Amino acid sequence: MKEQQNLNVSIVGASGYTGIELVRILLHHPNVSIKQIIANNNSGKYLNEIYPHFKNEKTLKLISLKEAKWDNTDVIFLCLPHTASQKIIRELPSNIKIIDLSADFRIKDKNLYSKWYGEEHLAPEFISKASYGLPELFKEEIKDSDIIACPGCFPTGAILPLFPLLQQNIIEAENIIIDSKTGVSGAGRNLKQNLLFCEMNENIYPYNICNHRHIAEIEQSLYIASKIKAEINFVPQIIPINRGILSTIYTYMKKDQNIDDLHKTLKNFYKDSFFIKVMDQGYTPNILEVQHTNYCHISVHQGRSSNLAVITSVIDNLGKGAAGQAIQNMNIIFNLKENSGLNNTPAFP
Amino acid sequence: MKEQQNLNVSIVGASGYTGIELVRILLHHPNVSIKQIIANNNSGKYLNEIYPHFKNEKTLKLISLKEAKWDNTDVIFLCLPHTASQKIIRELPSNIKIIDLSADFRIKDKNLYSKWYGEEHLAPEFISKASYGLPELFKEEIKDSDIIACPGCFPTGAILPLFPLLQQNIIEAENIIIDSKTGVSGAGRNLKQNLLFCEMNENIYPYNICNHRHIAEIEQSLYIASKIKAEINFVPQIIPINRGILSTIYTYMKKDQNIDDLHKTLKNFYKDSFFIKVMDQGYTPNILEVQHTNYCHISVHQGRSSNLAVITSVIDNLGKGAAGQAIQNMNIIFNLKENSGLNNTPAFP
Amino acid sequence: MKEQQNLNVSIVGASGYTGIELVRILLHHPNVSIKQIIANNNSGKYLNEIYPHFKNEKTLKLISLKEAKWDNTDVIFLCLPHTASQKIIRELPSNIKIIDLSADFRIKDKNLYSKWYGEEHLAPEFISKASYGLPELFKEEIKDSDIIACPGCFPTGAILPLFPLLQQNIIEAENIIIDSKTGVSGAGRNLKQNLLFCEMNENIYPYNICNHRHIAEIEQSLYIASKIKAEINFVPQIIPINRGILSTIYTYMKKDQNIDDLHKTLKNFYKDSFFIKVMDQGYTPNILEVQHTNYCHISVHQGRSSNLAVITSVIDNLGKGAAGQAIQNMNIIFNLKENSGLNNTPAFP
Amino acid sequence: MKEQQNLNVSIVGASGYTGIELVRILLHHPNVSIKQIIANNNSGKYLNEIYPHFKNEKTLKLISLKEAKWDNTDVIFLCLPHTASQKIIRELPSNIKIIDLSADFRIKDKNLYSKWYGEEHLAPEFISKASYGLPELFKEEIKDSDIIACPGCFPTGAILPLFPLLQQNIIEAENIIIDSKTGVSGAGRNLKQNLLFCEMNENIYPYNICNHRHIAEIEQSLYIASKIKAEINFVPQIIPINRGILSTIYTYMKKDQNIDDLHKTLKNFYKDSFFIKVMDQGYTPNILEVQHTNYCHISVHQGRSSNLAVITSVIDNLGKGAAGQAIQNMNIIFNLKENSGLNNTPAFP
Repeated sequence: MKEQQNLNVSIVGASGYTGIELVRILLHHPNVSIKQIIANNNSGKYLNEIYPHFKNEKTLKLISLKEAKWDNTDVIFLCLPHTASQKIIRELPSNIKIIDLSADFRIKDKNLYSKWYGEEHLAPEFISKASYGLPELFKEEIKDSDIIACPGCFPTGAILPLFPLLQQNIIEAENIIIDSKTGVSGAGRNLKQNLLFCEMNENIYPYNICNHRHIAEIEQSLYIASKIKAEINFVPQIIPINRGILSTIYTYMKKDQNIDDLHKTLKNFYKDSFFIKVMDQGYTPNILEVQHTNYCHISVHQGRSSNLAVITSVIDNLGKGAAGQAIQNMNIIFNLKENSGLNNTPAFP
Repeated sequence: MKEQQNLNVSIVGASGYTGIELVRILLHHPNVSIKQIIANNNSGKYLNEIYPHFKNEKTLKLISLKEAKWDNTDVIFLCLPHTASQKIIRELPSNIKIIDLSADFRIKDKNLYSKWYGEEHLAPEFISKASYGLPELFKEEIKDSDIIACPGCFPTGAILPLFPLLQQNIIEAENIIIDSKTGVSGAGRNLKQNLLFCEMNENIYPYNICNHRHIAEIEQSLYIASKIKAEINFVPQIIPINRGILSTIYTYMKKDQNIDDLHKTLKNFYKDSFFIKVMDQGYTPNILEVQHTNYCHISVHQGRSSNLAVITSVIDNLGKGAAGQAIQNMNIIFNLKENSGLNNTPAFP
Repeated sequence: MKEQQNLNVSIVGASGYTGIELVRILLHHPNVSIKQIIANNNSGKYLNEIYPHFKNEKTLKLISLKEAKWDNTDVIFLCLPHTASQKIIRELPSNIKIIDLSADFRIKDKNLYSKWYGEEHLAPEFISKASYGLPELFKEEIKDSDIIACPGCFPTGAILPLFPLLQQNIIEAENIIIDSKTGVSGAGRNLKQNLLFCEMNENIYPYNICNHRHIAEIEQSLYIASKIKAEINFVPQIIPINRGILSTIYTYMKKDQNIDDLHKTLKNFYKDSFFIKVMDQGYTPNILEVQHTNYCHISVHQGRSSNLAVITSVIDNLGKGAAGQAIQNMNIIFNLKENSGLNNTPAFP
Repeated sequence: MKEQQNLNVSIVGASGYTGIELVRILLHHPNVSIKQIIANNNSGKYLNEIYPHFKNEKTLKLISLKEAKWDNTDVIFLCLPHTASQKIIRELPSNIKIIDLSADFRIKDKNLYSKWYGEEHLAPEFISKASYGLPELFKEEIKDSDIIACPGCFPTGAILPLFPLLQQNIIEAENIIIDSKTGVSGAGRNLKQNLLFCEMNENIYPYNICNHRHIAEIEQSLYIASKIKAEINFVPQIIPINRGILSTIYTYMKKDQNIDDLHKTLKNFYKDSFFIKVMDQGYTPNILEVQHTNYCHISVHQGRSSNLAVITSVIDNLGKGAAGQAIQNMNIIFNLKENSGLNNTPAFP
């Protein structure tokens, strides 16, 4: 596809946390006009009626999906809850690029999908059309796809460091442990007791230990890298911050490898990547480095067991873990600069 | 001064919270090149060695003031602690515009300065050259000044709503109460026990009740508006958030005035202002609307006592309360668009 | 009533934030056995199934109101939402002391009640039987009452400093301003969007400006003190902490009074009070002093306007503002030591 | 030692976070009188001058170590920074029980001590006199010891679940991973930039990856359990809460063992323990369950790799991780009820 200077964008599910982050970034994207923002729940309202931070923006009025018109749209972002993308995808025009931020088209094997998500896939014929939208690993496929299945937030932070190491035989595919800590926004704007300020403040806890749906897509990607069907041990934990995921990854190096090899491999693999930064050895990233950005920072450390490597990665769950990465995919598909609209500097403090 | 397309900027005191916010905004300002960043304490270091959020920026190396050269500089920002600007201002080239973010040149009467700050002014001959950098009120003077004394964070949030109301005789000059709540960043990056996470988290308290130095500049501005030497009652409080000031202002309307008059006056006064937004009656702003921006949102409410008006204003103490406003002043002086570099949308959550 | 060494207690509405704080304190009260905990919503569950902090307590099973039996009960606490106490009070045995933590029996004038609460009172014949449960002011009435209407959290922090000053003619009854900042737990365990962690974290805002229902009971109490029907200006604000209320009160001293008189009056009035502490002049309390306790700390400060006094009070909204005070009332009614079960030291940090 | 009804206690280092937690608990301990509180830095001050939460307590005046007298003291608590206990221990009367909360006497091998702490031990002759004060594992030794070296906060949460499993051959001694997340109070009341509210709020990061001094004592204890010198992989992380440690532990079960065996072993081992609670399978503890208490809650979970067990433990770093455990040791030494003074219920929220 040749470079396109102005893209007309429609966003379905624009009133959730992921949707509004997408709107926020696209409002300042030099090549984008937001044409439609769609949300059945909130249709008829302006975004700044339901979110304070848009108070100074002339945001469009939310419309229902039925009211949407697609003639003028170059790309549709779907920021919908689980299964909702499956339900509507057949109604969307097949000549418009679709960037889906849900889990609906990530899992290539529909039986595996059913196993993890507990129900039949409703639009299995679209699965094979979808590319897994992790641009640093699958850029060529992304360019040519009609549907992009953007990765989950946890998988993004886990796959980025592990993929090259498995692909290049630096680490064992077995006994990988991913201990992740996520900010609360990852749970969305849902009215659940455990998400109340008073219940989350001063608290931390793990959930879905080795039983979280994101395991399926992590294992799928790591299989692509290693050709070994290994089971990964993934433990998510929720912490009282708004945004960000720190993943601490424990992985065993192959006998002939050491931590410097591992570091060199990652450094080299991402040497031309704008968004993935492999830190010098001795430095450990913190979440504030990447909050509100599309960056992923990675550090590697020698374990105390001689062949253990400890890898940390930090991302913003709504940035590189969701809206930022979706826009990066859009930039790639339409031949824009990969970091177009995505080169901000986060505020501190 | 005619419009200048590219400004060369030097920042003195670039390693404090205000300095780095200035750097952060200017890095993305379309008409600015940062030429020198100066900080005696941290000279020789790169900003991203001492602040994580600059990790992905090629920031300059901090130099000491002695190492600074001014040939190429169009404007100098001073982000220094109290009295430091006074001490160095004579050494700075007189043909370069100076935008000072400290309190050093805000108070026009040097005796009043001594009274509130507890010491003689060290460069009194520069006081009269300085304009008070609240652009919505003093734009014409700012354009022609060589030195801009940017307002304090609390005064900005207090003066903006009160000035027009006093000037247009809507409210009494007496018995004004300003109850302000500030985020912790207002205290700077100082190693003080009360600023430790564990001491500030879950806490709130007032300090310097009716005895805070910012009173001097608030009263000075309100005198300009009303020609009445009234004493204002100002109570600052610190709350466990990073950024933002909410000021709740209590003021008595003149007998022939009512809350609609007051609202109309403010709405009209700021009708052409990009950054000052007077909310429709019935709406109360929250801090998240303005965090990380240069906006000030104002709401007015009928008190229960019939002639009492309750006015709220919210700003970001490092934005409109410091670095944002300083850049707005620069834009005005150099005939740039007033909101150049300052029209971002804050993230949520 | 003579001293009773062991009280059998039933708690209705035991599964809200106020109810569980009551349970928590009473579990360690030396003269209390909790006999029944009642909550229609959660009946059949143990408290430690729905609250993590009871994990190590053998708490009773919650039962529905229909299942409750009263033969063995000396005192019933009602921790119910608005209007629920009115609906059930006729069904409760008239010979058992009732301590109601809701607003249902606080307002003596049923028309005033209707005006502020927007509906007819459902059990008006009980209003006159109820005493307003602010023990430092109304201890004698409390001792003899069958129903105690415990004050609201905001009124507690506001009335305690203002009552003695009005009663002893130290301050004017007019133009009183109460600017309060409350932790989030004051809003209860309700599934509301604005109470989500991500929406409240890093935020602050005022609400119900001069239009909050607690105004009715504040004005009622201050009328008792002053015999003047003055309107108070009350502005509540919510801040991102779990517990605590800081009230900053602005009030004008009578012409012949000064801040030392005011301080002496308060100091003297509360000199024998275990829970109300008037700080030495120059000291300003913070919330951490009283969190998790039944204390109220008060400080007084000279305003900048010569006759203005600035008074601050801090309480724990669930302690002295709710459950703690309810237990203090129980202690008084049953002739126990007033601080029985209530003399803990809060943790820090 | 026979039961003693009233103990006279002296606390050295009473003005740090650990010291004040000790004071706070002991103030309400039924068998304790605090006789002396000692802190060279703050001598001459009352504790409530330097900590707000003691405002309502008649705390003693801090004295310097030189001023201390020991005639009347039954037990001395040392809450001192690293090496300070070594420096003063020879001056303390040898007939008084010493409970040391520092790392100074934890490591039995003085060379190992030097290796991890980077300096010679200053009082090596006292090391062998000290018992490691983890009462659930070493109660008999503790009873007879003159010096108790209380465990570090991280080791407490890690050793408690691992010790019985190693001792009873349920898990491999190799390849143990301990991923811990600690509240900020673990770092003490130190004036460090990274502990400022604005730098820690909204942040999380790992530090000292596989290189933290607590590794030494964890490995020492696990060696006692397993007789195998295995290296443990320990990664601490700091999160923005005041108190609490969540440790997520990854460990491989022996071939003939499964997760039910592991659960049964722990459940059985701690069946008579008041403070260590092994949760039913399926339940995952959170920090709020144990905050402000001396409890440790443990859960076990099947990993995705078939022989991997995921174990979580939660403690309060200042409770079971420091002051609470020190008092538990005192209770044991003096034949008091083990939970005397330690059976509070934490507040929520």
